[in-house]
Amino acid sequence: MRINNAAMRPCFDLSAARMAVIDDMPRFFLNKVAVIGVGLIGGSLALALKRKGLAGTIVGIGRGTENLADAKRLGVVDSTTLDVAEGVRDADLVFVAVPVLKIGETIKKALPSLKQGCVVTDAGSVKKAIIDEVEPIMPAGVHFVGGHPIAGTENSGARYAFPELYVGRRCILTPTPDTDEKALGLVRSVWEEAGASVVIMEASAHDRVLAAVSHLPHMIAYSLVNTVADVEDAGADALGYSAGGFKDFTRIASSSPEMWSDICAMNRDAIIEMIDSFQRRLDRLKGLIKDRDLKGLKEDFDRAKRVRDSLLKKNVK
Amino acid sequence: MRINNAAMRPCFDLSAARMAVIDDMPRFFLNKVAVIGVGLIGGSLALALKRKGLAGTIVGIGRGTENLADAKRLGVVDSTTLDVAEGVRDADLVFVAVPVLKIGETIKKALPSLKQGCVVTDAGSVKKAIIDEVEPIMPAGVHFVGGHPIAGTENSGARYAFPELYVGRRCILTPTPDTDEKALGLVRSVWEEAGASVVIMEASAHDRVLAAVSHLPHMIAYSLVNTVADVEDAGADALGYSAGGFKDFTRIASSSPEMWSDICAMNRDAIIEMIDSFQRRLDRLKGLIKDRDLKGLKEDFDRAKRVRDSLLKKNVK
Repeated sequence: MRINNAAMRPCFDLSAARMAVIDDMPRFFLNKVAVIGVGLIGGSLALALKRKGLAGTIVGIGRGTENLADAKRLGVVDSTTLDVAEGVRDADLVFVAVPVLKIGETIKKALPSLKQGCVVTDAGSVKKAIIDEVEPIMPAGVHFVGGHPIAGTENSGARYAFPELYVGRRCILTPTPDTDEKALGLVRSVWEEAGASVVIMEASAHDRVLAAVSHLPHMIAYSLVNTVADVEDAGADALGYSAGGFKDFTRIASSSPEMWSDICAMNRDAIIEMIDSFQRRLDRLKGLIKDRDLKGLKEDFDRAKRVRDSLLKKNVK
Repeated sequence: MRINNAAMRPCFDLSAARMAVIDDMPRFFLNKVAVIGVGLIGGSLALALKRKGLAGTIVGIGRGTENLADAKRLGVVDSTTLDVAEGVRDADLVFVAVPVLKIGETIKKALPSLKQGCVVTDAGSVKKAIIDEVEPIMPAGVHFVGGHPIAGTENSGARYAFPELYVGRRCILTPTPDTDEKALGLVRSVWEEAGASVVIMEASAHDRVLAAVSHLPHMIAYSLVNTVADVEDAGADALGYSAGGFKDFTRIASSSPEMWSDICAMNRDAIIEMIDSFQRRLDRLKGLIKDRDLKGLKEDFDRAKRVRDSLLKKNVK
């Protein structure tokens, strides 16, 4: 891997602010990047690297010829292939942006063709299960770094990719004691060049936090919509009386069923833990309603409102 | 009450379409309207009546002098008073748009001053408890019609009122066997002139439907935010990793704790029924996750997605 060592700096001892001050030089150059899964996530990182001139050539690898044709035509990648082993050959960086349940097997397919020094990273929204599957089988001299950019839109496919997707977003990296420091530094720099702010976290902490703020809300939204659908099936035209609030509230129930059943399988324990916590909260609230405990209800709602309102101050996008 | 009887038609036997064709004459004229609670809901109906020239004078009655002064200055009402009994004197129509727990006692205060033929209606988001409280105490010749316009914005107060708030929205009216037909016809016409599409429903059916599509989502949103706050309190900066989806999903947890504790008290049984149904759904989903039943999970999510996507076709605002 050709890394511009003069400009590449260690990843833990410099604040983002100081980094910005030191130089505007790119901190690395990658002769060849392979992006497996050229959708919104993979395509947008490819475009960000291209825009900054940080990659010599970018190969797009996928399963759908139509999407790959889009990616090539729109200049998201330079060439495409359906063959993982062929596409990753000689790559300095392999970015695996396929559905979370496929990440392990995709990396397994790539392994025999990876050159020494190659760095493999992913964008899976679950981390521990992937690391447990991948880390033990990485050959010596080939490095894996788990990652999860907290970004996305409602659209999928290469034609929706855009280079600014990651600007101002967080990207969580989940190194283990076995993670190569230089590989971690490179992946960190890649995300920073794409505009993301990188956070280092243990994989299991990542999975718990994401279970709380993302996976649990999806489970709730799906269950809520199914509850209202049950009322509909019982004869009441309930949905006709829903207002904008219900539509906003249930927007995430329109997410991909396939993706979310995969996430459930991959982050099973943390999701169950969060559902249990939520059920205790809801049971408590139900008790207050049964008791007509207006003071208790108001306190419960007050706390939630305070926390929710604080999100506005945190400038969550 | 002076009602333009030539133009006022019976309320059940004409479709909205035919009504529109027959004439453009206003179907009623109200010498005096009293609006108790001149916030977004009360103020917007006042403005709609004024714009159409359907009211001689509109009195705003409230508890806060500042809001009443806004209402007068902005032309939402013609005069104001803090005294319910004084404000409703000689009114043809009294519109009670105060918090749901206060509707009963407000009407009780007004009763001694109401003239014969006066029609009282409300905008409470719970109907059976209010009707049970109010209907038995209405004097002969004074009529109550329960109502609930499905409309609102995030803002409250007279200065946010606007005459188009109800255009294209539904307004549910919940007459009982004891409801006066002419009074129901007048209230129906008032909402139709304001642009709403009126639906007649039994009070308990209203309460169940609203419990499903509005009250349950609020209980869930408050409980979810409190669950994530528990994770925060345990040391993880979970909220910092929430994305736009979480912010949208929990927007309704920023609603007024006072209003929602009142609604819980007023619609206790239907809300508990819906929480129970929801908990069964979530338990079932948790079972599928525990069993890693990918097929079952996908089916569950598929159904929810289909129902949620159908909202877009229903053009829910």
